[in-house]
Amino acid sequence: MTDLARRAAELDAADPLAEHVDRFVRGGDVVAYLDGNSLGRPLRSLPQRYGDFIERDWGERLIRSWDEQWMRRPFDLGDRIGALVGAGPGQVFVGDSTTVLLYKLARAAVDAQAERGRTEIVIDEDNFPSDRFIVEGIAAERGCTIRWIEADPAGGVSLEQVEEAVGERTALVLLSHVAYRSGFVADVAGITRAAHDAGALVLWDLCHSAGVIPVGLDEHGVDLAVGCSYKYLNGGPGAPAFGYVRSDLHERLAQPIQGWMGAADVFAMGPRFEPAAGLGRFLSGTPPVLATVALEAMVELVESVGIDAVRAKSIALTDFAEAALAEHVLPLGARLASPPAGPHRGSHLTVTHPSFREVNARLWERGVIGDFRAPDGIRIGLSPLSTTFAEVDVGVAALGEELRRALR
Amino acid sequence: MTDLARRAAELDAADPLAEHVDRFVRGGDVVAYLDGNSLGRPLRSLPQRYGDFIERDWGERLIRSWDEQWMRRPFDLGDRIGALVGAGPGQVFVGDSTTVLLYKLARAAVDAQAERGRTEIVIDEDNFPSDRFIVEGIAAERGCTIRWIEADPAGGVSLEQVEEAVGERTALVLLSHVAYRSGFVADVAGITRAAHDAGALVLWDLCHSAGVIPVGLDEHGVDLAVGCSYKYLNGGPGAPAFGYVRSDLHERLAQPIQGWMGAADVFAMGPRFEPAAGLGRFLSGTPPVLATVALEAMVELVESVGIDAVRAKSIALTDFAEAALAEHVLPLGARLASPPAGPHRGSHLTVTHPSFREVNARLWERGVIGDFRAPDGIRIGLSPLSTTFAEVDVGVAALGEELRRALR
Repeated sequence: MTDLARRAAELDAADPLAEHVDRFVRGGDVVAYLDGNSLGRPLRSLPQRYGDFIERDWGERLIRSWDEQWMRRPFDLGDRIGALVGAGPGQVFVGDSTTVLLYKLARAAVDAQAERGRTEIVIDEDNFPSDRFIVEGIAAERGCTIRWIEADPAGGVSLEQVEEAVGERTALVLLSHVAYRSGFVADVAGITRAAHDAGALVLWDLCHSAGVIPVGLDEHGVDLAVGCSYKYLNGGPGAPAFGYVRSDLHERLAQPIQGWMGAADVFAMGPRFEPAAGLGRFLSGTPPVLATVALEAMVELVESVGIDAVRAKSIALTDFAEAALAEHVLPLGARLASPPAGPHRGSHLTVTHPSFREVNARLWERGVIGDFRAPDGIRIGLSPLSTTFAEVDVGVAALGEELRRALR
Repeated sequence: MTDLARRAAELDAADPLAEHVDRFVRGGDVVAYLDGNSLGRPLRSLPQRYGDFIERDWGERLIRSWDEQWMRRPFDLGDRIGALVGAGPGQVFVGDSTTVLLYKLARAAVDAQAERGRTEIVIDEDNFPSDRFIVEGIAAERGCTIRWIEADPAGGVSLEQVEEAVGERTALVLLSHVAYRSGFVADVAGITRAAHDAGALVLWDLCHSAGVIPVGLDEHGVDLAVGCSYKYLNGGPGAPAFGYVRSDLHERLAQPIQGWMGAADVFAMGPRFEPAAGLGRFLSGTPPVLATVALEAMVELVESVGIDAVRAKSIALTDFAEAALAEHVLPLGARLASPPAGPHRGSHLTVTHPSFREVNARLWERGVIGDFRAPDGIRIGLSPLSTTFAEVDVGVAALGEELRRALR
């Protein structure tokens, strides 16, 4: 047993959240799953929960379930997710994909700001593709300009960069709370304040933080946010996203995809669209109820554990992964492309090496699952509730072995 | 036993599709489910299928499933749904809600037509709310006018009305194949031809026909279509919709919600958006895979039975329901607000009476589930694979009893 393996065993033994690891499906050939930041593992309770849902809520209550519970589901589940990201009730809803919600909320912000002569959108060059593509599309269709912030790919967007970028023409600042490549955690408090000081609205993408890092949306006065539910919220492949709109903005904003579920009286089916008075106006189509059964189960678990405890294990796992990389991988010429330990480090690390595309393919074959990101990065995602320190040790050691083999 | 009950028993005994009824969950207090046009019943195979999906595809293969199968899922499942609505491969995709897809495809059409100076959208006053609301929103944001066709609430939009409405300014005609209230089946062939003769594009809403009535999209040269999967395709509450874009339009149209899944190279994550060369450009966010497990199971069943056989039973059920209404309900002063038997009648009937709001509430309590639609309609939906003639007899008789009680 190596020193690191011993250290991993000690950390697992002392881990107050260790009991939860076995709540997740851990089958097949997988020896180390280091990609919970891309697709969280399923909970073992899900087959039963889906069975109950199918037989009772759907199969027995049938259409009556809409009245009994499903119409409220986007808001009930939204409130619970809201609590995990620091949002009080009535501000978070579930529905649509992250991309569609980015479009809806960014359009709502840009259209409202256009009335005040503000037509510039601030975003960084290294933001996730959907965020950038949505902004490109909106800029083209609404006659806006884009102010691109050049981000450090191994770091992220700094407060100073935002302060320099915003001004009297800025309509919206759209940034990721945690950078999808580097795992850099942005300064939500400072950047939101800087955007507001310039008269801009801010939309935070929480995809890589929701369920693993406290966000403090209300505390920091955030305007808008969108987050993903299939990463650290383990909602399953393609599970619906959630959106946050601060209470006092509900009546001031309108989103463009006007559907029956966003109307003031859904079943009036009246002749003309009238948006719902509150958060409901940000809904469009029929809520994706069947798709949220897994998400609800994970939200329950995170609630019971507490987001601060989840974050504490996330930090411990990331620190341990860094030590394992320093032992097995960095000496072979790979580079860590993530921030150092501290408040700017999220729950995943990226390592880079020109051979990593082939290395990652080999790792997948032996059941060590990280995430290759072009051109040369492997992301090591550490989903605290489903990942052991031993798993990190085994996975990173395998990464070192395969890199060594590739370099022969 | 009444004559009608005897007739129902004979029809069930002779029904070539009778064996399929028990493939569906039939539990709880429900004695007659007449709302499969709103939410189809779940298949009994689903708990097992969800269990397998969760434990194997998601739980064991984890992120590898994206490469192995999930990236193709919107198109593979789309092709299979396409076959049910008369579309050849490579033209149908699954994802987003009906409302979001209506927005994306209507915007794509309107934006393309604007370049040719066409700025009017034709739609009927009695179309489903989302269809109308989407058109209102797009007209406002893109500077279009709306030409409203006045529809007969008990019938639908006629070819003559469309011929009169379209002209050199028409950009898009957006109509429902089957009217959500009356069940009227529009003349897809004639109306599509009339729209094309005027230089307009046509977008058909297939929500109330997909999976129960052949559509012939390719045969009739339809441009665009959107359909729902939780009605006659039994995909479960809020299951994703599907969109159809005729092959030769792929390169000529662009939709506004530019996400990573619609990019030419999804994992290039390059600096600027470049739309996928084919159908892929109509995708936006991550495909809703978990949400399509139920849908896939039902598509399999409809494939095995054949859409023509499904339609044949749909006609027989509707004819029988009309006879039962004539016996139990119409003599009490209720009115049939649906077309007579024939090619213009879909798979549901609407009956109206001023007392139906309270009558429907009573019916729900006794497990007879139809669908109240303000101000005074009850829809009787007849999902052929899960509905027996006996169920229709029992349900319509109960409707008569409760109406009689309300009138006392």
